[in-house]
Amino acid sequence: MAINLKTPVNKDLLSIPGIKLATISAGLKDKNRKDLMLIVLDDGSLVSGTFTQNKFCAAPVIVSRSHLKLTNNIKALIVNTGSANAGTGDEGIENTKSICKSLASALNINSNEVLPFSTGVIMTPLPVEKIKKAIPDLIKDLKGNNWLDASEAIMTTDTIPKVVSKSILIQDKKVNITGMSKGAGMIHPNMATMLAFIGMDVNISLDMLQKLNKEIVTSTFNCISVDGDSSTNDSFVIITSNQSGNSKIVKEDNDYKNLKSAIFNVALKLAQSIVRDGEGATKFITIEVQNGKNIDECKKVGMSIARSPLVKTAFFASDPNLGRILSAIGNSNLEDLDISLIDLYINGLLFASGGSIVKDYDESKLKKEMENLEINLKINLNKGSHMATVWTTDLSYEYVKINAEYRT
Amino acid sequence: MAINLKTPVNKDLLSIPGIKLATISAGLKDKNRKDLMLIVLDDGSLVSGTFTQNKFCAAPVIVSRSHLKLTNNIKALIVNTGSANAGTGDEGIENTKSICKSLASALNINSNEVLPFSTGVIMTPLPVEKIKKAIPDLIKDLKGNNWLDASEAIMTTDTIPKVVSKSILIQDKKVNITGMSKGAGMIHPNMATMLAFIGMDVNISLDMLQKLNKEIVTSTFNCISVDGDSSTNDSFVIITSNQSGNSKIVKEDNDYKNLKSAIFNVALKLAQSIVRDGEGATKFITIEVQNGKNIDECKKVGMSIARSPLVKTAFFASDPNLGRILSAIGNSNLEDLDISLIDLYINGLLFASGGSIVKDYDESKLKKEMENLEINLKINLNKGSHMATVWTTDLSYEYVKINAEYRT
Repeated sequence: MAINLKTPVNKDLLSIPGIKLATISAGLKDKNRKDLMLIVLDDGSLVSGTFTQNKFCAAPVIVSRSHLKLTNNIKALIVNTGSANAGTGDEGIENTKSICKSLASALNINSNEVLPFSTGVIMTPLPVEKIKKAIPDLIKDLKGNNWLDASEAIMTTDTIPKVVSKSILIQDKKVNITGMSKGAGMIHPNMATMLAFIGMDVNISLDMLQKLNKEIVTSTFNCISVDGDSSTNDSFVIITSNQSGNSKIVKEDNDYKNLKSAIFNVALKLAQSIVRDGEGATKFITIEVQNGKNIDECKKVGMSIARSPLVKTAFFASDPNLGRILSAIGNSNLEDLDISLIDLYINGLLFASGGSIVKDYDESKLKKEMENLEINLKINLNKGSHMATVWTTDLSYEYVKINAEYRT
Repeated sequence: MAINLKTPVNKDLLSIPGIKLATISAGLKDKNRKDLMLIVLDDGSLVSGTFTQNKFCAAPVIVSRSHLKLTNNIKALIVNTGSANAGTGDEGIENTKSICKSLASALNINSNEVLPFSTGVIMTPLPVEKIKKAIPDLIKDLKGNNWLDASEAIMTTDTIPKVVSKSILIQDKKVNITGMSKGAGMIHPNMATMLAFIGMDVNISLDMLQKLNKEIVTSTFNCISVDGDSSTNDSFVIITSNQSGNSKIVKEDNDYKNLKSAIFNVALKLAQSIVRDGEGATKFITIEVQNGKNIDECKKVGMSIARSPLVKTAFFASDPNLGRILSAIGNSNLEDLDISLIDLYINGLLFASGGSIVKDYDESKLKKEMENLEINLKINLNKGSHMATVWTTDLSYEYVKINAEYRT
């Protein structure tokens, strides 16, 4: 059950001039579902990527990283589901390269102008022949208004496709932004079994695009946790076709700030959608950590709470077993943490202060708040002026069920 | 269901000269179960303690630490269940001190010669009056052969009492060792919702006793994880009555080494019992990490695996979803980790090498091994000569159930 997450409809999605997408059912998963996705970019497009920090990263991550180092003349991105092509050794690298080569040859581009992505079961070989065989028909499907199908084609344990559009004006030119993401489990920074692609047409320099990518990922995709497991294949890509006609953004001016705010908006929705569709999730929990000495310590506190199975099962049960929250804060490894300074709120109700429960504490009232699908947990550290927000889910029977049965 | 863990019987347990124990049903939990426990020590006894590293530690931990700093003339230890007396602010401290005072007055000792311990729900007030009222009858129950009852009296979500005895010869004098522990959830170093008390009668200096405590805890109680949540109340205490008649152990000689090996044996059994009785556990998993550069990095790798919900649900399902193990290793934050060097074994079967699955991999064979109650996962890092072992459980529906319903 996804929490307050609607299936997107095509009419709400903006095509991006210069970016075409295609999908096909290549037989990588169930017979009748789309499982292979392609993005093709016009000449002059730019691409920036952030990839998993897991040391055990997948073959497509290794190849995409190296292609992005070689050139920024990326022309195509290909995404398969079914196999993550991780834990597949040298053969996995060869397989990924061979897909790039086939696709490049079909599109009449260079092999290193392709970025490959995979998602699915780890340590399962990439079904190379099936993918290669599907490429010619896949290419035939290329079109601009294909974002919804594309977002469906990259789903694994996701129950709802995740795709969002927004447009803004930059120097009176309309800039279109459309992004998609996938992921529901193995979700924790840095980063998660998570793929996200945001396309736009704004004219911007490569430096600024890369800066944008880093800034956005820090406060969106790196602030979500479903199960504390970060993964082998995580990739966050921003693409621009550069065709919107504004004069190039080359520094941190107001145009950059407006653009950043719009992309942040899209990326946050996509990141939150992953949590809302989190494996077994029955609650969407926003953890706001306020008045820390710096952003990093606020994030540490938030993530320590988001990662605690005891806190998450208490939220699942709507059980105000609040000490578990304080205990998780105590586990966050802050050097000069003073529990007696901390105030804790759930949906605006102050329930703990001075290291203990408040005097007029009304458990039944708080229990009722915890029964909501959307819960806001606010932690005031009262020791500085910085803040961070992280988003997570509860931990339910269903999470165990999904992950115990994933491959069967 | 505890995994291969038998209920201990009294005749297997050794009394310790100079150490008496008592229990009572003080009405702190269910009417008919023992819930308050007392240990009283002869003059000349010594006590060493290791306490939780959670910044949000409970009132009894704060008070016990301060009493141990003031004096090592400890005469009594009192343990209540029902309330952890954590997240109870200044009132919690006052309540704990008031219990110490009542007990001291009844035993005609000083208040700071009492060490208090609590376990149970966090942020629930200590039932001070019930405990005080029970003290006179509690004292009447003091006897040497009371370890089994005592181990039952400190149980919370434990399903089986945990108590172990062993005797050794030091300089031809018989030394008796008996230890008990409690804990089933909120189990992760450093340390867990875990109480453990080991009593013995060996003659040893305070310095060496404290050294022993630190060395033992590092490779036993700090190497177990049930759910990754460390807690507010963890305490590991070694007591000696000094009455065995050997000449005092004052340095790291052979006597010290023999003693350490015996205590290690007892502590390891107690620590493993906590995992075997872990909340919802259906498998007991030993993770041996070999040939790392140092013990610390081996432990990091082991704990990263032990903490991964995805690995734990795969073990629950006996599903050889082995990439999750490699992914967890990749998440362990080792600086120079080379996945291609790693060999992975389950119950002796090599299944991954060179960063991918072995050529002659037989999934059905491995699945069969994973159906065992006891699983040995061996990771050979092939980069050094050090090793560490950690112990954990799988993650089942039952874990969620227990923790969603703990207070009801």
